Amino acid sequence: MNNGKDSAVRVSVGLGERAYDILIGPDLMPRVGAEIAARLPGTRAAVVTDENVAAAHLAALEESLRDADVECATIRLPPGERSKSFDALQETVDAVLAARLERRDTIVALGGGVVGDLAGFVAGIVRRGMNFVQVPTSLLAQVDSSVGGKTGINTSRGKNLVGVFHQPKLVLADTSVLDTLPLREFRAGYAEVVKYGLIDRPDFFAWLEGNWQQVFAGGEARVEAIAQSCRAKAEIVERDEHESGERALLNLGHTFGHALEAATGYDGARLVHGEGVAIGMVLVHRFSARLNLASPDDAIRVEAHLREIGLPTRPEHIPGDLPDAETLLAYIAQDKKVMRGALTFILTRGIGHSFVARDVPSSEVLSFLKESLRP
Amino acid sequence: MNNGKDSAVRVSVGLGERAYDILIGPDLMPRVGAEIAARLPGTRAAVVTDENVAAAHLAALEESLRDADVECATIRLPPGERSKSFDALQETVDAVLAARLERRDTIVALGGGVVGDLAGFVAGIVRRGMNFVQVPTSLLAQVDSSVGGKTGINTSRGKNLVGVFHQPKLVLADTSVLDTLPLREFRAGYAEVVKYGLIDRPDFFAWLEGNWQQVFAGGEARVEAIAQSCRAKAEIVERDEHESGERALLNLGHTFGHALEAATGYDGARLVHGEGVAIGMVLVHRFSARLNLASPDDAIRVEAHLREIGLPTRPEHIPGDLPDAETLLAYIAQDKKVMRGALTFILTRGIGHSFVARDVPSSEVLSFLKESLRP
Repeated sequence: MNNGKDSAVRVSVGLGERAYDILIGPDLMPRVGAEIAARLPGTRAAVVTDENVAAAHLAALEESLRDADVECATIRLPPGERSKSFDALQETVDAVLAARLERRDTIVALGGGVVGDLAGFVAGIVRRGMNFVQVPTSLLAQVDSSVGGKTGINTSRGKNLVGVFHQPKLVLADTSVLDTLPLREFRAGYAEVVKYGLIDRPDFFAWLEGNWQQVFAGGEARVEAIAQSCRAKAEIVERDEHESGERALLNLGHTFGHALEAATGYDGARLVHGEGVAIGMVLVHRFSARLNLASPDDAIRVEAHLREIGLPTRPEHIPGDLPDAETLLAYIAQDKKVMRGALTFILTRGIGHSFVARDVPSSEVLSFLKESLRP
Repeated sequence: MNNGKDSAVRVSVGLGERAYDILIGPDLMPRVGAEIAARLPGTRAAVVTDENVAAAHLAALEESLRDADVECATIRLPPGERSKSFDALQETVDAVLAARLERRDTIVALGGGVVGDLAGFVAGIVRRGMNFVQVPTSLLAQVDSSVGGKTGINTSRGKNLVGVFHQPKLVLADTSVLDTLPLREFRAGYAEVVKYGLIDRPDFFAWLEGNWQQVFAGGEARVEAIAQSCRAKAEIVERDEHESGERALLNLGHTFGHALEAATGYDGARLVHGEGVAIGMVLVHRFSARLNLASPDDAIRVEAHLREIGLPTRPEHIPGDLPDAETLLAYIAQDKKVMRGALTFILTRGIGHSFVARDVPSSEVLSFLKESLRP
């Protein structure tokens, strides 16, 4: 049962009575059942997944649960962002209730960010809170969305506007499953890895510049990059679980990124989330340089690294037409991180020195956007 | 602004960073705006209410918010339990988002338990948690549902199966508004007041036996009964906020009561919640006597008091036919308080000495129900 235990890295998220472990390593899927049974004795489970992930990984997960005598039901969602909806929420809640699961039973999210966000929300509201375990299968989910307890769905008025904070009891990041990801999706997840370096870990960013090929190739460097990302996120979440302040740093690059996603109508063929974040991070470094907060060299260095791994770094890299700067600003002002009508941005004083800037004048943002949209 | 401040009783719910005050007294409605503005400076508000309550109290509440410069939107629901649904949840969430409220803004629930449970759930999930203030207008809501942070909706699989714990920032219980309640509804709420005496306050129960007429009449005795109830509930919630143990005591009478409500198809013309609780509390005392846990005299005394104020106390007091004992047991076993398949009941060793009994044999419950259903 403990085969390979030593090859996994453990990152602890210190949240008092809500503390939990993140286990990161290759070939963890066969251990999921035993790790759940050890932490939640007697629990039953409902695995929430999507049809694509199910085809690749569900059998292994179910076998692992069976081996550990964890009784389980399975709930399959259509793949894609549309499953983060009120309708999918209601259907999944009903399926969990139909399986007669109780408060001490466990929702297991097997999939990427969409599955994790929806399943976590379901776990947060059925019987006012069930146990929750994340088995993220995308790089984005392993380094970002599966850690920290944010769950939620989209509405016609915006993404992630409805949800709860509901921490998992355990996150199991099997780094081998990432080998089956399309390269574009791996790259998009890698943008969030880079983000942690840019927020407050300049040495990590430098390490990534030198080791990104090995991260893409798999093996120890990949485990290390994911573990470092989870540690970085855990430290911020520990200090500000419910995003009353510092946690907003995790949105580095996201305000511009979300506006670009909205501007493309969330058309994944044109732009996926991590690509929006990549462009957004470059824009933030360039905007910060324009405000004389950071050296233009930092923006150049960030852009060079992201471009090297094959991510888009400029709005003009997005295929198709974009709306004008005024429209983009309107998307930014609708963003939920806008507090009391003032524009809040994560800006930077240089690589690894980002900070939360409140009251950024929208006129500055607008003229910067106008410049940035020039081809 | 502080007119009448001294006439209100303050009960504090000590939940650390989630601590809040309950203010109880006559003519509090004009103070709501000032009390909110003092605690949540700069907040905007959305008042969630139902059409009946709006007709009676909305104008006063809106005036109070206006006087305190609290900008507000109003969201009206159809009256009745049907508003505790996924559809109403989605509509209310959308109305809050349409009003462009942010995380620091406030949902104000103006109404009874249905409005409070739905509005609290909305406040708990929009932007992953907004501020929440309860202005309960029924006795039931003032002494029970507005305190303690339980929120939620019903599904076709049962009541209150979906929701979150989301504590309010403030509860304002204006005892004058209860004068407009139909007597039957006041009585039903009074059953929950009696419950606190039966759980762990024998002196309070004795006081109610002697003073119930004044509680019904209004004035100081009513304020005292509501304050005492809130104190009793607050003490239990402080010790077990998320119902992992002792908080289950608040379900005294509810397991039988819920089964009877389900058996009548939740037809309020036949049985409302508090009436089910009244019958349930008598059944619990009789069941406990049958198990030789308590004296039969206690059951007689509890029944005498509830009957004196005009509440039903036996299943046969419910108009129309009831299903047989086996069916009632099946409703009990579906109850969400059933853990791991064992029947959990709140039983009693006598008035004011109730306790959580796990593993109550269902055979004992069944034969007791068979006896109790005999006319």
